[in-house]
Amino acid sequence: MTDTSDSTAGGPRLRAVPEGDDRERLTCPDCGYVAYENPKVITGAVCTWQDGGEEKVLLCRRAIEPRRGFWTIPAGFLELGETMVEGAVREVWEEARAEIEVGGLLGVFEIPHISQIYIVYHARMTSPAHAPGPESEATELLGWDEMPWDDLAFPSIRWALERYRDEAARPHLATHDRR
Amino acid sequence: MTDTSDSTAGGPRLRAVPEGDDRERLTCPDCGYVAYENPKVITGAVCTWQDGGEEKVLLCRRAIEPRRGFWTIPAGFLELGETMVEGAVREVWEEARAEIEVGGLLGVFEIPHISQIYIVYHARMTSPAHAPGPESEATELLGWDEMPWDDLAFPSIRWALERYRDEAARPHLATHDRR
Repeated sequence: MTDTSDSTAGGPRLRAVPEGDDRERLTCPDCGYVAYENPKVITGAVCTWQDGGEEKVLLCRRAIEPRRGFWTIPAGFLELGETMVEGAVREVWEEARAEIEVGGLLGVFEIPHISQIYIVYHARMTSPAHAPGPESEATELLGWDEMPWDDLAFPSIRWALERYRDEAARPHLATHDRR
Repeated sequence: MTDTSDSTAGGPRLRAVPEGDDRERLTCPDCGYVAYENPKVITGAVCTWQDGGEEKVLLCRRAIEPRRGFWTIPAGFLELGETMVEGAVREVWEEARAEIEVGGLLGVFEIPHISQIYIVYHARMTSPAHAPGPESEATELLGWDEMPWDDLAFPSIRWALERYRDEAARPHLATHDRR
Protein backbone atom coordinates (compact mmCIF):
# COMPACT_ATOMS: atom_id res chain seq x y z
CA MET A 1 0.00 0.00 0.00
CA THR A 2 1.22 3.47 -0.87
CA ASP A 3 -0.34 6.61 0.51
CA THR A 4 -0.32 8.97 -2.50
CA SER A 5 -2.49 11.54 -0.80
CA ASP A 6 -2.47 15.02 0.49
CA SER A 7 -3.08 13.96 4.08
CA THR A 8 -5.64 16.72 4.59
CA ALA A 9 -7.92 15.48 1.75
CA GLY A 10 -10.52 12.75 2.02
CA GLY A 11 -11.64 10.17 -0.51
CA PRO A 12 -9.95 7.16 -2.12
CA ARG A 13 -6.19 7.71 -1.81
CA LEU A 14 -4.53 4.45 -0.80
CA ARG A 15 -3.31 2.14 -3.58
CA ALA A 16 -4.12 -1.49 -2.71
CA VAL A 17 -5.19 -4.69 -4.51
CA PRO A 18 -8.84 -5.48 -3.63
CA GLU A 19 -9.79 -9.08 -2.90
CA GLY A 20 -10.30 -11.02 -6.16
CA ASP A 21 -8.61 -8.34 -8.25
CA ASP A 22 -5.13 -8.43 -9.77
CA ARG A 23 -4.04 -4.81 -9.74
CA GLU A 24 -3.88 -1.86 -7.39
CA ARG A 25 -6.95 0.39 -7.11
CA LEU A 26 -7.48 3.60 -5.21
CA THR A 27 -9.22 2.85 -1.93
CA CYS A 28 -10.49 5.07 0.83
CA PRO A 29 -8.98 4.38 4.25
CA ASP A 30 -11.91 6.15 5.93
CA CYS A 31 -14.74 4.13 4.45
CA GLY A 32 -13.27 1.26 2.40
CA TYR A 33 -14.68 2.46 -0.94
CA VAL A 34 -12.78 1.22 -4.01
CA ALA A 35 -12.59 3.73 -6.89
CA TYR A 36 -12.33 1.67 -10.07
CA GLU A 37 -10.75 4.11 -12.48
CA ASN A 38 -11.17 3.37 -16.17
CA PRO A 39 -10.34 5.30 -19.32
CA LYS A 40 -12.76 8.11 -20.09
CA VAL A 41 -14.54 8.76 -23.36
CA ILE A 42 -14.60 12.26 -24.80
CA THR A 43 -17.13 13.05 -27.49
CA GLY A 44 -17.14 16.06 -29.80
CA ALA A 45 -17.55 17.29 -33.34
CA VAL A 46 -15.87 19.16 -36.15
CA CYS A 47 -18.77 21.51 -36.95
CA THR A 48 -18.88 23.34 -40.26
CA TRP A 49 -20.90 26.15 -41.83
CA GLN A 50 -20.92 27.03 -45.53
CA ASP A 51 -20.37 30.80 -45.65
CA GLY A 52 -21.03 31.70 -49.29
CA GLY A 53 -18.75 29.24 -51.06
CA GLU A 54 -16.31 28.95 -48.15
CA GLU A 55 -16.30 26.25 -45.49
CA LYS A 56 -15.86 27.54 -41.95
CA VAL A 57 -15.13 25.47 -38.85
CA LEU A 58 -16.43 26.21 -35.36
CA LEU A 59 -13.69 26.57 -32.74
CA CYS A 60 -13.79 27.56 -29.06
CA ARG A 61 -11.07 29.28 -27.01
CA ARG A 62 -10.92 27.49 -23.69
CA ALA A 63 -11.87 29.48 -20.58
CA ILE A 64 -10.75 26.69 -18.25
CA GLU A 65 -7.64 24.67 -17.51
CA PRO A 66 -6.00 22.65 -18.87
CA ARG A 67 -4.83 24.74 -21.85
CA ARG A 68 -6.87 27.84 -21.03
CA GLY A 69 -6.69 30.32 -23.91
CA PHE A 70 -6.01 27.66 -26.55
CA TRP A 71 -8.39 26.58 -29.28
CA THR A 72 -10.48 23.42 -29.40
CA ILE A 73 -13.40 21.88 -31.18
CA PRO A 74 -16.43 21.49 -28.89
CA ALA A 75 -15.85 18.24 -26.99
CA GLY A 76 -16.17 16.86 -23.48
CA PHE A 77 -16.64 13.83 -21.28
CA LEU A 78 -19.43 11.48 -22.28
CA GLU A 79 -22.03 11.31 -19.50
CA LEU A 80 -23.88 8.26 -18.19
CA GLY A 81 -26.91 7.24 -20.22
CA GLU A 82 -26.28 9.23 -23.38
CA THR A 83 -25.19 8.06 -26.82
CA MET A 84 -21.91 9.37 -28.16
CA VAL A 85 -23.83 11.44 -30.73
CA GLU A 86 -26.09 12.89 -28.02
CA GLY A 87 -22.99 13.79 -26.03
CA ALA A 88 -21.43 15.55 -29.02
CA VAL A 89 -24.61 17.56 -29.65
CA ARG A 90 -24.76 18.49 -25.95
CA GLU A 91 -21.11 19.59 -25.83
CA VAL A 92 -21.51 21.74 -28.97
CA TRP A 93 -24.39 23.50 -27.25
CA GLU A 94 -22.67 23.80 -23.86
CA GLU A 95 -19.37 25.14 -25.20
CA ALA A 96 -20.40 27.05 -28.35
CA ARG A 97 -24.18 27.58 -28.16
CA ALA A 98 -24.49 26.13 -31.67
CA GLU A 99 -26.96 23.63 -33.09
CA ILE A 100 -25.83 20.85 -35.39
CA GLU A 101 -26.87 17.90 -37.49
CA VAL A 102 -24.33 15.12 -37.06
CA GLY A 103 -23.14 13.73 -40.40
CA GLY A 104 -21.15 10.73 -39.24
CA LEU A 105 -18.19 9.39 -37.31
CA LEU A 106 -14.92 11.10 -38.17
CA GLY A 107 -12.78 8.79 -36.08
CA VAL A 108 -11.61 7.36 -32.79
CA PHE A 109 -8.42 8.77 -31.30
CA GLU A 110 -7.01 7.09 -28.22
CA ILE A 111 -4.42 8.61 -25.89
CA PRO A 112 -3.42 5.72 -23.62
CA HIS A 113 -0.89 7.61 -21.48
CA ILE A 114 -3.71 9.79 -20.16
CA SER A 115 -6.40 7.10 -20.60
CA GLN A 116 -8.65 9.12 -22.88
CA ILE A 117 -10.54 8.04 -25.99
CA TYR A 118 -11.85 10.75 -28.32
CA ILE A 119 -14.90 9.90 -30.41
CA VAL A 120 -15.15 12.68 -33.00
CA TYR A 121 -18.01 13.30 -35.41
CA HIS A 122 -18.38 15.64 -38.35
CA ALA A 123 -21.45 17.83 -38.25
CA ARG A 124 -23.18 20.60 -40.14
CA MET A 125 -24.37 23.67 -38.23
CA THR A 126 -28.06 24.31 -38.83
CA SER A 127 -27.48 28.08 -38.55
CA PRO A 128 -24.36 30.26 -38.24
CA ALA A 129 -25.31 31.25 -34.70
CA HIS A 130 -22.71 30.57 -32.01
CA ALA A 131 -21.62 32.11 -28.70
CA PRO A 132 -19.33 31.15 -25.83
CA GLY A 133 -20.77 28.90 -23.14
CA PRO A 134 -19.34 28.97 -19.59
CA GLU A 135 -16.24 26.92 -20.48
CA SER A 136 -15.30 29.09 -23.50
CA GLU A 137 -13.76 32.58 -23.66
CA ALA A 138 -14.70 32.98 -27.33
CA THR A 139 -16.15 31.06 -30.25
CA GLU A 140 -15.29 31.64 -33.93
CA LEU A 141 -16.19 30.33 -37.37
CA LEU A 142 -12.80 30.10 -39.08
CA GLY A 143 -11.80 29.32 -42.67
CA TRP A 144 -9.06 26.75 -43.32
CA ASP A 145 -6.57 29.59 -44.01
CA GLU A 146 -7.38 31.10 -40.60
CA MET A 147 -6.84 27.96 -38.48
CA PRO A 148 -4.77 28.63 -35.34
CA TRP A 149 -2.63 25.50 -35.89
CA ASP A 150 0.01 26.66 -33.39
CA ASP A 151 -2.52 27.48 -30.69
CA LEU A 152 -4.62 24.32 -30.59
CA ALA A 153 -5.30 22.93 -27.14
CA PHE A 154 -4.45 19.24 -27.68
CA PRO A 155 -2.93 16.87 -30.30
CA SER A 156 -6.39 15.31 -30.64
CA ILE A 157 -7.77 18.62 -31.94
CA ARG A 158 -5.13 18.88 -34.67
CA TRP A 159 -5.77 15.23 -35.56
CA ALA A 160 -9.53 15.84 -35.84
CA LEU A 161 -9.17 18.98 -37.96
CA GLU A 162 -6.59 17.41 -40.29
CA ARG A 163 -8.60 14.24 -40.56
CA TYR A 164 -11.73 16.20 -41.50
CA ARG A 165 -9.88 18.40 -43.97
CA ASP A 166 -8.11 15.44 -45.63
CA GLU A 167 -10.59 12.60 -45.47
CA ALA A 168 -13.93 13.32 -43.87
CA ALA A 169 -15.77 10.34 -45.30
CA ARG A 170 -13.88 7.45 -43.78
CA PRO A 171 -13.92 6.65 -40.03
CA HIS A 172 -10.44 6.21 -38.71
CA LEU A 173 -8.79 4.72 -35.65
CA ALA A 174 -5.60 6.34 -34.41
CA THR A 175 -3.43 5.94 -31.33
CA HIS A 176 -1.42 8.79 -29.89
CA ASP A 177 1.14 6.84 -27.91
CA ARG A 178 3.70 8.81 -25.92
CA ARG A 179 4.47 6.21 -23.26
CA MET B 1 -29.85 15.13 -1.89
CA THR B 2 -31.04 11.56 -1.92
CA ASP B 3 -29.48 8.83 0.15
CA THR B 4 -29.46 5.84 -2.21
CA SER B 5 -27.29 3.76 0.07
CA ASP B 6 -27.32 0.66 2.07
CA SER B 7 -26.77 2.50 5.36
CA THR B 8 -24.20 -0.06 6.52
CA ALA B 9 -21.91 0.50 3.50
CA GLY B 10 -19.33 3.26 3.15
CA GLY B 11 -18.21 5.17 0.10
CA PRO B 12 -19.90 7.68 -2.21
CA ARG B 13 -23.66 7.22 -1.80
CA LEU B 14 -25.33 10.62 -1.63
CA ARG B 15 -26.52 12.19 -4.90
CA ALA B 16 -25.72 15.92 -4.91
CA VAL B 17 -24.66 18.59 -7.41
CA PRO B 18 -21.02 19.57 -6.72
CA GLU B 19 -20.07 23.25 -6.86
CA GLY B 20 -19.55 24.36 -10.47
CA ASP B 21 -21.23 21.27 -11.88
CA ASP B 22 -24.68 20.97 -13.41
CA ARG B 23 -25.76 17.45 -12.51
CA GLU B 24 -25.93 15.15 -9.54
CA ARG B 25 -22.87 13.04 -8.71
CA LEU B 26 -22.35 10.37 -6.10
CA THR B 27 -20.63 11.92 -3.09
CA CYS B 28 -19.36 10.43 0.14
CA PRO B 29 -20.91 11.92 3.28
CA ASP B 30 -17.97 10.60 5.35
CA CYS B 31 -15.13 12.23 3.46
CA GLY B 32 -16.60 14.50 0.78
CA TYR B 33 -15.17 12.55 -2.18
CA VAL B 34 -17.07 13.00 -5.47
CA ALA B 35 -17.23 9.88 -7.66
CA TYR B 36 -17.48 11.11 -11.24
CA GLU B 37 -19.06 8.16 -13.01
CA ASN B 38 -18.60 7.98 -16.77
CA PRO B 39 -19.40 5.36 -19.38
CA LYS B 40 -16.97 2.46 -19.44
CA VAL B 41 -15.15 1.06 -22.44
CA ILE B 42 -15.09 -2.69 -23.01
CA THR B 43 -12.51 -4.09 -25.42
CA GLY B 44 -12.48 -7.55 -26.95
CA ALA B 45 -12.02 -9.58 -30.10
CA VAL B 46 -13.68 -12.06 -32.41
CA CYS B 47 -10.78 -14.52 -32.59
CA THR B 48 -10.63 -17.10 -35.38
CA TRP B 49 -8.60 -20.20 -36.21
CA GLN B 50 -8.54 -21.93 -39.59
CA ASP B 51 -9.10 -25.62 -38.84
CA GLY B 52 -8.38 -27.34 -42.15
CA GLY B 53 -10.64 -25.37 -44.47
CA GLU B 54 -13.12 -24.42 -41.76
CA GLU B 55 -13.15 -21.15 -39.82
CA LYS B 56 -13.64 -21.58 -36.09
CA VAL B 57 -14.41 -18.83 -33.55
CA LEU B 58 -13.15 -18.73 -29.97
CA LEU B 59 -15.93 -18.47 -27.38
CA CYS B 60 -15.87 -18.56 -23.57
CA ARG B 61 -18.62 -19.77 -21.24
CA ARG B 62 -18.81 -17.24 -18.42
CA ALA B 63 -17.91 -18.43 -14.91
CA ILE B 64 -19.05 -15.17 -13.31
CA GLU B 65 -22.17 -13.04 -13.11
CA PRO B 66 -23.79 -11.40 -14.93
CA ARG B 67 -24.92 -14.14 -17.36
CA ARG B 68 -22.89 -16.95 -15.81
CA GLY B 69 -23.03 -20.05 -18.03
CA PHE B 70 -23.69 -18.07 -21.21
CA TRP B 71 -21.25 -17.66 -24.09
CA THR B 72 -19.17 -14.62 -24.93
CA ILE B 73 -16.22 -13.54 -26.98
CA PRO B 74 -13.23 -12.62 -24.79
CA ALA B 75 -13.82 -9.01 -23.73
CA GLY B 76 -13.53 -6.85 -20.63
CA PHE B 77 -13.09 -3.38 -19.20
CA LEU B 78 -10.28 -1.33 -20.69
CA GLU B 79 -7.72 -0.51 -17.99
CA LEU B 80 -5.88 2.76 -17.43
CA GLY B 81 -2.83 3.28 -19.60
CA GLU B 82 -3.43 0.61 -22.20
CA THR B 83 -4.46 0.93 -25.83
CA MET B 84 -7.73 -0.65 -26.88
CA VAL B 85 -5.78 -3.28 -28.85
CA GLU B 86 -3.56 -4.05 -25.85
CA GLY B 87 -6.68 -4.45 -23.74
CA ALA B 88 -8.21 -6.88 -26.25
CA VAL B 89 -5.03 -8.98 -26.35
CA ARG B 90 -4.93 -9.01 -22.52
CA GLU B 91 -8.59 -10.05 -22.21
CA VAL B 92 -8.14 -12.88 -24.76
CA TRP B 93 -5.28 -14.20 -22.64
CA GLU B 94 -7.06 -13.69 -19.28
CA GLU B 95 -10.33 -15.30 -20.32
CA ALA B 96 -9.27 -17.89 -22.92
CA ARG B 97 -5.49 -18.36 -22.57
CA ALA B 98 -5.14 -17.77 -26.31
CA GLU B 99 -2.65 -15.67 -28.23
CA ILE B 100 -3.74 -13.52 -31.14
CA GLU B 101 -2.67 -11.13 -33.86
CA VAL B 102 -5.21 -8.35 -34.13
CA GLY B 103 -6.36 -7.78 -37.72
CA GLY B 104 -8.35 -4.59 -37.32
CA LEU B 105 -11.33 -2.84 -35.80
CA LEU B 106 -14.59 -4.71 -36.28
CA GLY B 107 -16.75 -1.98 -34.82
CA VAL B 108 -17.95 0.19 -31.97
CA PHE B 109 -21.18 -0.83 -30.23
CA GLU B 110 -22.63 1.52 -27.64
CA ILE B 111 -25.24 0.59 -25.06
CA PRO B 112 -26.26 3.93 -23.55
CA HIS B 113 -28.83 2.61 -21.06
CA ILE B 114 -26.03 0.80 -19.22
CA SER B 115 -23.33 3.31 -20.25
CA GLN B 116 -21.05 0.81 -21.97
CA ILE B 117 -19.12 1.12 -25.21
CA TYR B 118 -17.78 -2.06 -26.82
CA ILE B 119 -14.70 -1.72 -29.02
CA VAL B 120 -14.43 -5.02 -30.89
CA TYR B 121 -11.53 -6.19 -33.04
CA HIS B 122 -11.14 -9.15 -35.34
CA ALA B 123 -8.07 -11.26 -34.68
CA ARG B 124 -6.34 -14.41 -35.85
CA MET B 125 -5.18 -16.94 -33.26
CA THR B 126 -1.48 -17.68 -33.64
CA SER B 127 -2.07 -21.30 -32.50
CA PRO B 128 -5.19 -23.35 -31.73
CA ALA B 129 -4.28 -23.45 -28.03
CA HIS B 130 -6.93 -22.18 -25.62
CA ALA B 131 -8.07 -22.89 -22.06
CA PRO B 132 -10.39 -21.29 -19.52
CA GLY B 133 -8.97 -18.46 -17.42
CA PRO B 134 -10.45 -17.69 -13.96
CA GLU B 135 -13.54 -15.92 -15.37
CA SER B 136 -14.45 -18.74 -17.79
CA GLU B 137 -15.98 -22.18 -17.15
CA ALA B 138 -14.98 -23.43 -20.60
CA THR B 139 -13.51 -22.24 -23.89
CA GLU B 140 -14.32 -23.68 -27.33
CA LEU B 141 -13.37 -23.22 -30.96
CA LEU B 142 -16.74 -23.39 -32.73
CA GLY B 143 -17.69 -23.47 -36.40
CA TRP B 144 -20.42 -21.16 -37.68
CA ASP B 145 -22.90 -24.06 -37.71
CA GLU B 146 -22.14 -24.73 -34.04
CA MET B 147 -22.70 -21.18 -32.72
CA PRO B 148 -24.82 -21.09 -29.53
CA TRP B 149 -26.93 -18.20 -30.84
CA ASP B 150 -29.60 -18.74 -28.18
CA ASP B 151 -27.12 -18.89 -25.32
CA LEU B 152 -25.02 -15.80 -25.94
CA ALA B 153 -24.37 -13.62 -22.90
CA PHE B 154 -25.21 -10.18 -24.31
CA PRO B 155 -26.68 -8.49 -27.43
CA SER B 156 -23.21 -7.03 -28.08
CA ILE B 157 -21.83 -10.56 -28.55
CA ARG B 158 -24.43 -11.45 -31.18
CA TRP B 159 -23.78 -8.11 -32.88
CA ALA B 160 -20.01 -8.77 -32.97
CA LEU B 161 -20.36 -12.31 -34.31
CA GLU B 162 -22.90 -11.34 -36.96
CA ARG B 163 -20.87 -8.32 -37.95
CA TYR B 164 -17.75 -10.44 -38.35
CA ARG B 165 -19.59 -13.16 -40.28
CA ASP B 166 -21.34 -10.68 -42.59
CA GLU B 167 -18.86 -7.89 -43.10
CA ALA B 168 -15.53 -8.22 -41.33
CA ALA B 169 -13.67 -5.67 -43.39
CA ARG B 170 -15.56 -2.49 -42.60
CA PRO B 171 -15.55 -0.83 -39.15
CA HIS B 172 -19.05 -0.10 -38.01
CA LEU B 173 -20.74 2.06 -35.40
CA ALA B 174 -23.94 0.78 -33.87
CA THR B 175 -26.16 1.89 -31.00
CA HIS B 176 -28.20 -0.54 -28.96
CA ASP B 177 -30.80 1.83 -27.53
CA ARG B 178 -33.40 0.39 -25.16
CA ARG B 179 -34.20 3.56 -23.22
